[in-house]
Amino acid sequence: MIETPYLLFLGDAPDGLAAKVAQGIKDWRPDASLGQFRMEGCNANMHLPDMTITEAAAAGCKTLVIGVANRGGVISDAWKSVLVEALDAGMDVASGLHNLLNDEADLVEAAERNGKTLHDVRIPTVDYPIANGKKRTGKRCLAVGTDCSVGKMYTGIAMEREMLKRGMKATFRATGQTGILITGDGVPLDAVIADFMAGSVEYLTPDNDADHWDLIEGQGSLFHVSYSGVTMALVHGGQPDALILSHEPTRAHMRGLPEYQQPTLQQLRDTALPLAQVANPDCKVVGISVNTQHMSEDEANAYLAKVEAEMGLPTVDPFRHGAGRLVDALDAV
Amino acid sequence: MIETPYLLFLGDAPDGLAAKVAQGIKDWRPDASLGQFRMEGCNANMHLPDMTITEAAAAGCKTLVIGVANRGGVISDAWKSVLVEALDAGMDVASGLHNLLNDEADLVEAAERNGKTLHDVRIPTVDYPIANGKKRTGKRCLAVGTDCSVGKMYTGIAMEREMLKRGMKATFRATGQTGILITGDGVPLDAVIADFMAGSVEYLTPDNDADHWDLIEGQGSLFHVSYSGVTMALVHGGQPDALILSHEPTRAHMRGLPEYQQPTLQQLRDTALPLAQVANPDCKVVGISVNTQHMSEDEANAYLAKVEAEMGLPTVDPFRHGAGRLVDALDAV
Repeated sequence: MIETPYLLFLGDAPDGLAAKVAQGIKDWRPDASLGQFRMEGCNANMHLPDMTITEAAAAGCKTLVIGVANRGGVISDAWKSVLVEALDAGMDVASGLHNLLNDEADLVEAAERNGKTLHDVRIPTVDYPIANGKKRTGKRCLAVGTDCSVGKMYTGIAMEREMLKRGMKATFRATGQTGILITGDGVPLDAVIADFMAGSVEYLTPDNDADHWDLIEGQGSLFHVSYSGVTMALVHGGQPDALILSHEPTRAHMRGLPEYQQPTLQQLRDTALPLAQVANPDCKVVGISVNTQHMSEDEANAYLAKVEAEMGLPTVDPFRHGAGRLVDALDAV
Repeated sequence: MIETPYLLFLGDAPDGLAAKVAQGIKDWRPDASLGQFRMEGCNANMHLPDMTITEAAAAGCKTLVIGVANRGGVISDAWKSVLVEALDAGMDVASGLHNLLNDEADLVEAAERNGKTLHDVRIPTVDYPIANGKKRTGKRCLAVGTDCSVGKMYTGIAMEREMLKRGMKATFRATGQTGILITGDGVPLDAVIADFMAGSVEYLTPDNDADHWDLIEGQGSLFHVSYSGVTMALVHGGQPDALILSHEPTRAHMRGLPEYQQPTLQQLRDTALPLAQVANPDCKVVGISVNTQHMSEDEANAYLAKVEAEMGLPTVDPFRHGAGRLVDALDAV
């Protein structure tokens, strides 16, 4: 539905984490990521060719994708002049921001003038039901994190890729804008009306073959006070058979909450598992994924070994070392 | 903003619980509740005078309030003919249903024709922020339930009334349509966009005097898989200093979920308190409110004494016996 290839717009991202949408697309759809557009003050870098709008259009980019998220979502005037230039150059624009492209009169006008499309993947396009909690066929795996942005989506996609390679039945189920921009489908869970959150997750992960696994993209954290309600809807609506604990060990505090510390993996396990067992008494914690991007290879290996010994669960960085051991653990459920 | 007195519309409510909106208004605003309108098949009864629309208008009713909720919210054709008759008779119509009055062309036309207003208290009228988790001044109390519809709102209002009677500083903070129809203000939490749920609760319960208590209306249950995300947003956004555990002991299963059993009060305490302490490490469970409406006086007293002994916390039915002991417990925090 969204035309590729993409020009990834990094705007004035203050750091790499703010551009995690672009990073996800670049990592999982490198074929579709032709270049990046960075403004003054941008501290993110996808290590793609820097392109002007004219260069991107000439290179064949069909869609400018806003790959940078601001808390709350704001489309600044500085951004808009770039987006209008892209529309004038014949590109569509796609965004997962709360602040919708289609609510900005100047962007709508520029799109209409050029016969181009503004894709807001943030908007739910389905009237989701209220969750009924009924047991569904097939199996489901959910990654739950000690914090936001600790690698839950990466874990899910990496496991899906590994399972498909092994000939297993598996589907990554996107619940956020990056996931939706990568897969082309999903539920923009953080934009769903509160009463329908769990129902939207049930809708996303319906009855399936007994040996089929949904890899549900996690969101937020049960310990992140801004978004914990969204996480809870995934834990209950997703009815997981298996949980993966996800962690990023180098954070000084919870993402965006300087007064809050991350829980330990033990606290996460002891909180998430009983809550998951409300919806699925057979749910188990099967493994741990650690985002070691800020550690050296030696540091990462030592840390993973230590956690594995402490927790008694296969512990890997699926992006660095592959998701094989997590899939082995899932296969044993 | 919504003109009183009210005619309470009970529609074709299958049971009393389905008309809990009407029951709440009748119980807490008896002065504003002149009569009830019941259709064929209605099994709810507020023990108010049954009135036709003509009789209600003649008696001085200014607003017909839809006091019956359906799962998901639907305005049937049978309901509509009554609502149009009320508008034609000079009344406004107020509703907390998901399905909005203002989305129904025939109701909008009838309201315009008569110069009357359709109040949809379901719709948020504020752009709520994302929660920042910062410690706020003043104190907050939240009722958390073993299930939906177990008396959390009643507990909060009853405590506010008792505290005001004692000269304490207290404000009941409504988070659902009944509470909003009773108090005239609040956050329709189950209609808020997922990402802003906890922020809307922070907005509703801002900095206040050190000796002021917000009595926050609880919603759903951490153990109700359809709505647990909403409850979680209250637990973290509300930053409670005190939790009240709420329970209805005669349920055969969780409300609307025949496959699910209620947790015990011990399970509720052991789940809710650690989650609340993420946002407020000093949070305590201070008391238990039990909805004993389906028990005799003797049964109720025996049950309350048994729970009090088991849990070591003041245990009362605030509607039946007053909220005095819960307020005593709060005052000791």
